[in-house]
Formats: sequence, structure tokens, C-alpha cells
Amino acid sequence: MIDIPSMQRAGANAVKAIIDDVISEKLDVEKKFSSSKTAFRIADLGCSVGPNTFIAMQNIIDAVQQKYQSQGFASHMPEFQVFFNDHTSNDFNTLFASLPPERPYFATGVPGSFHGRLFPDFSLDFVHSSFALQWLSKVPEELLSKNSAAWNKGRVHYASAPDEVAQAYTVQFAKDITTFLEGRAKELVVGGLMVLNMPGIPNGNPHSSSVTGLSFDILGHCLVDMAKEGLISEVQVDSFNVPIYVASPKEMT
Amino acid sequence: MIDIPSMQRAGANAVKAIIDDVISEKLDVEKKFSSSKTAFRIADLGCSVGPNTFIAMQNIIDAVQQKYQSQGFASHMPEFQVFFNDHTSNDFNTLFASLPPERPYFATGVPGSFHGRLFPDFSLDFVHSSFALQWLSKVPEELLSKNSAAWNKGRVHYASAPDEVAQAYTVQFAKDITTFLEGRAKELVVGGLMVLNMPGIPNGNPHSSSVTGLSFDILGHCLVDMAKEGLISEVQVDSFNVPIYVASPKEMT
Repeated sequence: MIDIPSMQRAGANAVKAIIDDVISEKLDVEKKFSSSKTAFRIADLGCSVGPNTFIAMQNIIDAVQQKYQSQGFASHMPEFQVFFNDHTSNDFNTLFASLPPERPYFATGVPGSFHGRLFPDFSLDFVHSSFALQWLSKVPEELLSKNSAAWNKGRVHYASAPDEVAQAYTVQFAKDITTFLEGRAKELVVGGLMVLNMPGIPNGNPHSSSVTGLSFDILGHCLVDMAKEGLISEVQVDSFNVPIYVASPKEMT
Repeated sequence: MIDIPSMQRAGANAVKAIIDDVISEKLDVEKKFSSSKTAFRIADLGCSVGPNTFIAMQNIIDAVQQKYQSQGFASHMPEFQVFFNDHTSNDFNTLFASLPPERPYFATGVPGSFHGRLFPDFSLDFVHSSFALQWLSKVPEELLSKNSAAWNKGRVHYASAPDEVAQAYTVQFAKDITTFLEGRAKELVVGGLMVLNMPGIPNGNPHSSSVTGLSFDILGHCLVDMAKEGLISEVQVDSFNVPIYVASPKEMT
């Protein structure tokens, strides 16, 4: 359907320039090493199993090292510790087995949802997340009740659905992104940096016009056809909804 | 042969009192939180897949919390971050899936050998290792050469072997434990604590008298018998040696 790893890869390449800029402009090197020698800690939230997460982490470290060097602090270069995070069910065994052998960082894996807390207070210098924040913490509950105006019969997503369905998704996204940002606000050090790379839709565009929306429309139609042919049940289609939301820039600011 | 998890469990219980004492006597709570709010970071090196590692980590956290409370610093209680370490081939997926749901710490997994560096400088408050340090980084090379006096024909271990074999193991252990301690010396904060729980042999006792030694003697005899019956080759027995060493207290001080 959608080649997510390739999209992620393209996204990672596009975002490299942003990362370089953020680190070059915003990273306060002096403040960093005035507070005793500490490592520079980076987290990739929703890392999956690589290799995109390895490329992203290397980009960030390159940019930080560049900043230290350009400011004349090459002799104070920090050590790097990278925290690879994804759900507990992520294949961390494969992730660990494929870590770049010559990596310039100490690697750790962090199991758990980024919709909850993952790290101690003030313990991260840089948070990165790529093509992960579109995942909601759960399907909005209203979609699953037959008595609700948001009951999503014959569809698996909010694209091309009644307003109530889209609204339920929007509310769930707003809750989730708030929890996400509150968690990270506690986990980042003062002066910490964050780069979030996620699929989006232009302000004001209809949900059905996004690539994601179109794809899930097609998936929904396929499942309805399969139900008509008796391959799956209608109840299964009606109760299945994809917990993915594509936000607009306005919703993120 | 040997029920390692049960031995580890028994060891963990026995060592709980030691951990309690070390934390009660040596942990400098005032110094810990005078240096700005930071988490208390604990590593279990050679953690395997649980549940012993979870019990050990809980013991340590209980003892630290007890110390903070008894000194009147309950309101400054740190957050805890636990680093579960083992070889990259350890089953971290299973470890993560079986983490205690109500754990009072943020969990991470750290893939890699504790014979090398695993963490940034000054990044751990407490290092724990239980029934792991008996594993050498490799079989001593002299054992594998037919021309060496330490060629270990017809045996899989140094117990009941010529002195040259035992000596090769002793030298390898000395190298490995030195590398281990040098790494940890860099990774621990000033005032950091370490508890190492490992199988041992009384000073001066012959290697063949240890439970481990006896077990591998029997294993060696079994393999030789299998070779005689043609089930495996003699070359396979001669080239197989278990990279485990049981040290005496004298060797650890």
C-alpha cells in the first residue's frame, strides 16, 4: 500500500537540514558543559527496527559535533548516549543485532509508549521522532458504539466519514499530542531540543485529500467488498478503525 | 546440569543483605542531590531475561529509598532509571515483555559485552552484576594450539587439567576483570556503588574441588565417551572449552 520505510527515509533526508539548522542555531554549547561533564543524550521515539533510526541519530550527532567544533569547543566534545524507543512489542532483538558496529554512541533500547513517560526528569538533550506521532494511543471510543453518531460503519478511518467521526479523531489526537508534549517537557533538560517529523495535511484541506486518507478509503472499500463476499464479517469491518491521524500545521501550533 | 537460575536466585537473596548494608552505610544522599536534580541510575550487567534481575533491581531501589527516608530526605526522592545489560544476542524482547508492570523505575536495555564500555563517563550511580562475571570474554588462545603446553586435549575446562591450562584461564580472567573494573571506574559517578555477586572458590582450594570444576569434568568425560562412540569427533572435543572461570577471594582483591 504505502511504502512507509521509504517515506520515512525521504522524510529523514528532508529533515536533516532542519536538524542541522536547529542544532547550529539553538544548541547552547557553553551551558551544556558548564554543568559538569555529562553525556549528550538523544532519544528516537517510535524508532522501529532501523536503519532509518540509525541514520537519524548519526545526523544529529554529526550536527552536534559540528556545532562544538565551530564554536571552538572540540576538546569538550561530549560522549553520546542514544535511547531507541518503541512499543514493548517492537523487535528490539533485531534492532540491537543491526546496530552500526562503528557507532559513535552508547546504545540503549527503551520499551514503552511515548504517550506515557519514558525517561526521568531532565534526562534528555535531544528528542527526535519521525513518522510516529501520527499513531494515536487508541481508536476513539465513540467509533465503537452503535448508538454513537461517530459509529464508523463500513469504514476504517475518518477520511470520507461523517464529521462526527473526524471530530472524534481530532479530539483524540489533541489529547495524545498534549500528553506527548507534557511528557517530553519534563524529560528534556533546560535548553533541550526537539525535532518532530510527521505526515501532515495543509491547513483547511479536506481529510479525504491526504495520501493517508485516500489509502484508508481504498482499504475500507476492499474490506467492505470482502465482507460482501463472506470472507470476513461485517461486524469485523465496522469495529476495525486505524488509529492514525494526519494533523495540519495549525493543529500543531 | 547446574540449575543456574536457582543458583542466581539463591545468590540474589543472599546478596540482598549486602546490598542493604552497602547502601545504608556508603550512599551519600546529600552529595547526590546537591548536584542538581538527577535520576538515580542503576545497571545490571549480565541481566539475562529475568525475573532475577527484576528482583535485584527492586532490592536496590528499596534500599536507596529506605536510606533517603531514614536520613530525612524523603521529599528529595530521586527517580530511578534501570539499565538492563547483556550480550546483543540476549532475548531483550522477552525481557521487555516481562518487565513488572508496576515498576518504580524507567527501564532501558543495553546490548553489549561488559568486557567493553557500555555507558558514558559518570553516568551510573550503582552497578550490580550477579552470576555473570565468571564468563570470560573468550577462551584463552593457548588452549587451541596443538603446539602449546596448554593444549586442552580431552577436556573442556581447566579443572583437573595440567597447570598450564589453569594458568591460561587465570591470566585471561585477570585481563577480563581488569578491563571490567576499568570500564566501570569510568562509568560510575564519584561516590557510586558496585555489588558483584559471582561464584567463587576458597583461597588455596584446588580448581577441581569447585562445583563448577566438577561439573565440567563430568561434561568433558561425557564428550570424550561420545567421541569414542563416534557421535562427535575428537577434534570437536579438543577444540571446545568453556569460557568460565571461578575465582578465589584473593584474586578479586
